[in-house]
Amino acid sequence: DFMNALDEVKPAFGVSEEELETAMSAGILHYSPYIENILKDGRLFVDLVKNSATTSLLSVLLHGPPGSGKTALAARIAKDSQFPFIKLISAENMVGFSEMAKIQYLNKIFTDAYKSPQNIVVVDNIERIIEWVPIGPRFSNPVLQALMVLLTKNPPVPRRLLILGTTSQRSVMRQLDLQQIFNRELAVPNINSHKELASVLREVQAFDNESDLAESLNELRSITGTDQVGVGIKKVLLAVGEAKQEEGNVVNRFAEVVAQQMAANQG
Amino acid sequence: DFMNALDEVKPAFGVSEEELETAMSAGILHYSPYIENILKDGRLFVDLVKNSATTSLLSVLLHGPPGSGKTALAARIAKDSQFPFIKLISAENMVGFSEMAKIQYLNKIFTDAYKSPQNIVVVDNIERIIEWVPIGPRFSNPVLQALMVLLTKNPPVPRRLLILGTTSQRSVMRQLDLQQIFNRELAVPNINSHKELASVLREVQAFDNESDLAESLNELRSITGTDQVGVGIKKVLLAVGEAKQEEGNVVNRFAEVVAQQMAANQG
Amino acid sequence: DFMNALDEVKPAFGVSEEELETAMSAGILHYSPYIENILKDGRLFVDLVKNSATTSLLSVLLHGPPGSGKTALAARIAKDSQFPFIKLISAENMVGFSEMAKIQYLNKIFTDAYKSPQNIVVVDNIERIIEWVPIGPRFSNPVLQALMVLLTKNPPVPRRLLILGTTSQRSVMRQLDLQQIFNRELAVPNINSHKELASVLREVQAFDNESDLAESLNELRSITGTDQVGVGIKKVLLAVGEAKQEEGNVVNRFAEVVAQQMAANQG
Amino acid sequence: DFMNALDEVKPAFGVSEEELETAMSAGILHYSPYIENILKDGRLFVDLVKNSATTSLLSVLLHGPPGSGKTALAARIAKDSQFPFIKLISAENMVGFSEMAKIQYLNKIFTDAYKSPQNIVVVDNIERIIEWVPIGPRFSNPVLQALMVLLTKNPPVPRRLLILGTTSQRSVMRQLDLQQIFNRELAVPNINSHKELASVLREVQAFDNESDLAESLNELRSITGTDQVGVGIKKVLLAVGEAKQEEGNVVNRFAEVVAQQMAANQG
Amino acid sequence: DFMNALDEVKPAFGVSEEELETAMSAGILHYSPYIENILKDGRLFVDLVKNSATTSLLSVLLHGPPGSGKTALAARIAKDSQFPFIKLISAENMVGFSEMAKIQYLNKIFTDAYKSPQNIVVVDNIERIIEWVPIGPRFSNPVLQALMVLLTKNPPVPRRLLILGTTSQRSVMRQLDLQQIFNRELAVPNINSHKELASVLREVQAFDNESDLAESLNELRSITGTDQVGVGIKKVLLAVGEAKQEEGNVVNRFAEVVAQQMAANQG
Amino acid sequence: DFMNALDEVKPAFGVSEEELETAMSAGILHYSPYIENILKDGRLFVDLVKNSATTSLLSVLLHGPPGSGKTALAARIAKDSQFPFIKLISAENMVGFSEMAKIQYLNKIFTDAYKSPQNIVVVDNIERIIEWVPIGPRFSNPVLQALMVLLTKNPPVPRRLLILGTTSQRSVMRQLDLQQIFNRELAVPNINSHKELASVLREVQAFDNESDLAESLNELRSITGTDQVGVGIKKVLLAVGEAKQEEGNVVNRFAEVVAQQMAANQG
Ligand SMILES: Nc1ncnc2c1ncn2[C@@H]1O[C@H](COP(=O)(O)OP(=O)(O)OP(=O)(O)O)[C@@H](O)[C@H]1O
Ligand SMILES: Nc1ncnc2c1ncn2[C@@H]1O[C@H](COP(=O)(O)OP(=O)(O)OP(=O)(O)O)[C@@H](O)[C@H]1O
Ligand SMILES: Nc1ncnc2c1ncn2[C@@H]1O[C@H](COP(=O)(O)OP(=O)(O)OP(=O)(O)O)[C@@H](O)[C@H]1O
Ligand SMILES: Nc1ncnc2c1ncn2[C@@H]1O[C@H](COP(=O)(O)OP(=O)(O)OP(=O)(O)O)[C@@H](O)[C@H]1O
Ligand SMILES: Nc1ncnc2c1ncn2[C@@H]1O[C@H](COP(=O)(O)OP(=O)(O)OP(=O)(O)O)[C@@H](O)[C@H]1O
Ligand SMILES: Nc1ncnc2c1ncn2[C@@H]1O[C@H](COP(=O)(O)OP(=O)(O)OP(=O)(O)O)[C@@H](O)[C@H]1O
Ligand SMILES: [Mg+2]
Ligand SMILES: [Mg+2]
Ligand SMILES: [Mg+2]
Ligand SMILES: [Mg+2]
Ligand SMILES: [Mg+2]
Ligand SMILES: [Mg+2]
Repeated sequence: DFMNALDEVKPAFGVSEEELETAMSAGILHYSPYIENILKDGRLFVDLVKNSATTSLLSVLLHGPPGSGKTALAARIAKDSQFPFIKLISAENMVGFSEMAKIQYLNKIFTDAYKSPQNIVVVDNIERIIEWVPIGPRFSNPVLQALMVLLTKNPPVPRRLLILGTTSQRSVMRQLDLQQIFNRELAVPNINSHKELASVLREVQAFDNESDLAESLNELRSITGTDQVGVGIKKVLLAVGEAKQEEGNVVNRFAEVVAQQMAANQG
Repeated sequence: DFMNALDEVKPAFGVSEEELETAMSAGILHYSPYIENILKDGRLFVDLVKNSATTSLLSVLLHGPPGSGKTALAARIAKDSQFPFIKLISAENMVGFSEMAKIQYLNKIFTDAYKSPQNIVVVDNIERIIEWVPIGPRFSNPVLQALMVLLTKNPPVPRRLLILGTTSQRSVMRQLDLQQIFNRELAVPNINSHKELASVLREVQAFDNESDLAESLNELRSITGTDQVGVGIKKVLLAVGEAKQEEGNVVNRFAEVVAQQMAANQG
Repeated sequence: DFMNALDEVKPAFGVSEEELETAMSAGILHYSPYIENILKDGRLFVDLVKNSATTSLLSVLLHGPPGSGKTALAARIAKDSQFPFIKLISAENMVGFSEMAKIQYLNKIFTDAYKSPQNIVVVDNIERIIEWVPIGPRFSNPVLQALMVLLTKNPPVPRRLLILGTTSQRSVMRQLDLQQIFNRELAVPNINSHKELASVLREVQAFDNESDLAESLNELRSITGTDQVGVGIKKVLLAVGEAKQEEGNVVNRFAEVVAQQMAANQG
Repeated sequence: DFMNALDEVKPAFGVSEEELETAMSAGILHYSPYIENILKDGRLFVDLVKNSATTSLLSVLLHGPPGSGKTALAARIAKDSQFPFIKLISAENMVGFSEMAKIQYLNKIFTDAYKSPQNIVVVDNIERIIEWVPIGPRFSNPVLQALMVLLTKNPPVPRRLLILGTTSQRSVMRQLDLQQIFNRELAVPNINSHKELASVLREVQAFDNESDLAESLNELRSITGTDQVGVGIKKVLLAVGEAKQEEGNVVNRFAEVVAQQMAANQG
Repeated sequence: DFMNALDEVKPAFGVSEEELETAMSAGILHYSPYIENILKDGRLFVDLVKNSATTSLLSVLLHGPPGSGKTALAARIAKDSQFPFIKLISAENMVGFSEMAKIQYLNKIFTDAYKSPQNIVVVDNIERIIEWVPIGPRFSNPVLQALMVLLTKNPPVPRRLLILGTTSQRSVMRQLDLQQIFNRELAVPNINSHKELASVLREVQAFDNESDLAESLNELRSITGTDQVGVGIKKVLLAVGEAKQEEGNVVNRFAEVVAQQMAANQG
Repeated sequence: DFMNALDEVKPAFGVSEEELETAMSAGILHYSPYIENILKDGRLFVDLVKNSATTSLLSVLLHGPPGSGKTALAARIAKDSQFPFIKLISAENMVGFSEMAKIQYLNKIFTDAYKSPQNIVVVDNIERIIEWVPIGPRFSNPVLQALMVLLTKNPPVPRRLLILGTTSQRSVMRQLDLQQIFNRELAVPNINSHKELASVLREVQAFDNESDLAESLNELRSITGTDQVGVGIKKVLLAVGEAKQEEGNVVNRFAEVVAQQMAANQG
């Protein structure tokens, strides 16, 4: 009770450094102006929460296709804020938790946040946290409801809180009335053009030389019959890795794997 | 048992001062005659409960779009009553509660109310309290049923009780037979016209001068192609805050953000 | 065991006086011959249970629109019987009970009734007791089933039992096979004509004089365009109370509030 | 363990005398040849179970409209068998039981039956035992499954078991695959003609003389416009009781009440 | 632990002699060549499991109409194998078990089987074991899943296991993906022709002489208007027993009862 | 705690040798070039996980018809990797586990994997692990969600993890959003042509000579009227075993059994 009381008031500084680093372990590549725009908006939201007299709570939803880089960008924005309290809430830390335990876990992190002056909570992959599955559909309504409340609950004066949610299922968020609960949205795109793809490939030195790169993209174009890509950065980086395993066949293998990923997206 | 007995009879004075203040932390702006009408009806309901020989229980439902100001107006009416017992029931205080714990919590507040001569209970955001989600749909029927009973249960003679419910999902209330349980309704509107919007902007000194204000509204009109607004006061105040962050671009940013909110409402 | 045995045989006299009084706290107004008919049938059912050699159990369902006076009339019939055991079963006394606790509570009251020679059990607002909600629909099947059994279980010879159920959801009772379980039905009407309404208003002295009354009804007729009313006695009495709060405007306010209630019924 | 062992082997004689008597407290009136036929088939089934070398288990389903006399006839057949073990399983004895407790209770009665040479188990009102409700539909599948097994489980050699089930929801039994589990069926009819009705009224001396009886049936015919009746014996006997309460109006009241019951059946 | 260890390795010989005998208490009548074929296939499957180097596990599903003799034939095949371990899994032994207890019970029997060199497990009436009911439909998915795993789990080298499942709901097995889990199927037919029926009646000496038999079948033909039968052996034997009760009327009663059973099958 | 701490850091080497061997107890027959291709891709994925700087986690789904050899091929790939930690997760080891116990079991295996430098986890027969049944459909969402998280959770630097999932219900995986969680897919085919079938039969010496083989395939062709086969290797090997039981009839029996399996696939 004394300890509890203490616990109530003691500031909870703390940043999930390692988790943030893991989330962007392959860095942030600037393959498109959109990336910079997202980071710029992120900085503005950070400033708004830090400075505005009227806005002590702001919630932003980063949405985009699977593997497009949502978690990495949220981590980048959070890290750059240099806020004393930054936590990443992820289903990975809740495997085997009961519904109640999940809710307590969520509640604990927000309650901790209310003790530090400036806070960021990243709620990563919301569909996984609420245990969404399209068949049924089924999900944990108790967890969803707790989240809905925590996303709108004002921190006590004069604390500030920025919430960054991520999802690849924006339509699900809408169906659940969860999207409207966020104050603002940021759309994270796929790698959409050969130009963007080339930019990535150069930056990660996927090929030994420019002509290999050109050949591989030509091959990709000839398989798919289009200049569109529509694949997330995560899968592109994986394809680079896989291609590199097949020495002597890197150019072709890369094109084939990306083509398969494009087909799977349609599928 | 002795203590319990004592607990049964001792009057429970008490007002959730802080929660009421937080609920209307940005004040009540009089941007439209509707606002005054709502407050006037509120006063009449307070008087009715206080004075009428026949009406010892009255329940009123404040409904309106998200962020239109329902909770703030309920708080204002409650505060102005100067009743000795005013409690705000909110899902925020029940995160992590089991269904049973929620029901006990609700029951406790009403039971406390029955001990004081004049009481107001604000049941805020009913859809959250009953854990409503449109998919399914799902909700906590035990909590709903407890609420239905508590909303109609007469306080013991000579106690008086005014219940102020709020919801942004009036049609849900109707589907659940919950709307008909309220004796009276009050509709809380959005900010609907440029005129009302201008009134708000002036009151909060959003711009440095009238010409900036005019320019920003012109800009908004040119983006949206209409003089209608249809955005709640809460979002407007947030847009003001966000715009102010971008020095030099306040006029445009405000128009853009409000335009986005209008689009999201359609969405 | 000895105590239990004792408990088994000792007669359980007892009448829920206070609850019966509360149920008809505004009295029974005779605004229509239907009211007297209902009370007369009630007396006949009481006599049947008291005197008939063959009928030791009788169950009667009072059904009618919300606020039409079902509970008050059931209370009146029960009170007038002067039976030594009269209990009112209401959801109000079961807030926070588990399903099992509800069933035990119901069972206890009937078991008590089997110990007294002449008994009345009022099962008030059955839809609330079974936790009915139209969405789903959902309800407590265990409670419903217990009720179905208790409504048809004969008291031991020579005990007599009259059960008075009330509901504003007769069609729900039918869907649940619950209506057919009652031996007899009594329909409780709304206040349907201006004549009946005037009779009520005179009896409660709603207006200072007959010309005010006439003016108010004229006003109501001009707003609604009809001579039909279709509002329950409970809402009419509330409208009287509310109108009286606005001194100088009683005539108009009454007409407006009743007109609003008529509109709400249309939904 | 010793006690248990003992319990395993000791014969369980015992007849639910009182419950059987209560079930046919108004006797068995012979208003139609069907009644005698049912009792005759009942005797044959009793003999079959008693005497046949090959049939040690027989299950018979008595089905018919509500109040047609199924339980009374099952009780009559059981009583007349003079078997040493006769038990009546009824939902009345299971109010407040959990699903598991219900199953244990059912199992116990059958297990007891397996210890006596000749046994009858009446499973009364199966829809209530399995907690059937048409909305959903819902029912207790564990109880249903236990029943399905117990209805087909052979008693150990040389024990004999006759099971008499009753239901007013034969189509439900069919939907649940429960009807096909019974070896044989007996249909119990309503009182269908004025002739059968007159036979009942004479036997219970409903009227003082034949001319009153004729007048009442004429009245009934004139209200309903038909010579068909289609009401169960139970409701007819109740109508007799209710009519007798209104001295001087017996003839009319009887006709009115039966007419109302006929209308309710149409419903 | 020592005991456990012991338990792990000690061979579990054991045959459910009594249950197998009860299952075929009326013997196996050879009224059709199909019967011999089923038994012959059964012997082949027994040999396969006993002798084949590659097949240590084989699962066979006996399916057919209710009462056609599936359980008796499975018992016959199992008995004739003379395997040291033969167990019959039946819902009869699981009345009142929780889902978990059922699964443990199933698991225990298979685990025991893994300790003996040659094993047969009869899984009788699978629809009852998984608590299937067509309304819903509902069933115990945990029990079903456990069964699915146990039906495909290889016994440890060099143990051999033959699984004989029975069901009268083959289409249900298919809907549940349970049918495809069995390696082989055996179809058990009804008694389909008068010729087969006569063969049964002669073998059980249903009538005193051939002319009575012929007369009874003629009577049956005249009632039903067909030479088809389509009734299971179980019901035929029951009809014989019932007919024999009515001395002097055996010929007619048999025809009537079988005709009713044929009608019920249509029903 | 000390022990726990130890447990946290101590490397968990360990390979489910026996389970891997059992899974491919009939060896890997090379009846088609597809088989070699699958093994080759398998080796590439092993290398990728072992060597690539960027890919520390890779998940591959082997899908194909029932009995086509998915589990055996996954076991082969895993075995050939010579990784120090290889575990096979199978529903067989979870019979009787509660949902929570299953999740703990899954979590434990992955947590163990995170302690060894190079790891393979085979998640066999995913539909069984998540307790899928098509009616409903029903499945364990908690287990599914845990799996979804574990399939995407990165091992801590510098650990490497290859996950090999198997399923015969790829469309179910897609409906559950589970398929998209895997990085790559491998399709395992049935035995499709007589040529492939002959290759198998020769390798396992199903017949005494080539002319018997030819005769049996001719017989099969004449029964089925096609050269297509479409049966999994598992069923073919079973048919070989069964045919060999019938000495003198091997040629015909093999054709008949395979024909029946082909028909069942249509069924
Ligand atoms: N511009 C970029 N934006 C985001 N991530 C980038 C970018 N450039 C490189 N990356 C790298 O790509 C990966 C993106 O993966 P990330 O997990 O963030 O995607 P995601 O959209 O959250 O995926 P999922 O839908 O599976 O949650 C990270 O490893 C990150 O370091
Ligand atoms: N006229 C007004 N009416 C209501 N609120 C006002 C008004 N003017 C300013 N406000 C401020 O606007 C905000 C309204 O927010 P409030 O939470 O009450 O809206 P709400 O409709 O309850 O939102 P939600 O739908 O999210 O529950 C408060 O901060 C309040 O102080
Ligand atoms: N003739 C009347 N019949 C019934 N109630 C009357 C009558 N006249 C006056 N009253 C008063 O009207 C009120 C009727 O309310 P009551 O709660 O009985 O209605 P109800 O139909 O049970 O409502 P609900 O549908 O909410 O259960 C009571 O306060 C009662 O005293
Ligand atoms: N011929 C008869 N057959 C059956 N019951 C008769 C007959 N004659 C008189 N009775 C009386 O009629 C009543 C029949 O009621 P019973 O409870 O048996 O009907 P039920 O069909 O079981 O009703 P429910 O559908 O409510 O279960 C009993 O009181 C019985 O004594
Ligand atoms: N040829 C036969 N095949 C099977 N059973 C026979 C045969 N001849 C006689 N019988 C007898 O017929 C009865 C068949 O009943 P059994 O319980 O095996 O049928 P079932 O198909 O399993 O029934 P259910 O669908 O109820 O499970 C047994 O008593 C058995 O001794
Ligand atoms: N080329 C092959 N590929 C796979 N398995 C083979 C091959 N050749 C022979 N086999 C043998 O065939 C059997 C294949 O069975 P396996 O259990 O792997 O199939 P599966 O597709 O996993 O079946 P299920 O759908 O039931 O899970 C194994 O016994 C294996 O040893
Ligand atoms: Mg992510
Ligand atoms: Mg609000
Ligand atoms: Mg009422
Ligand atoms: Mg009955
Ligand atoms: Mg059987
Ligand atoms: Mg497999």
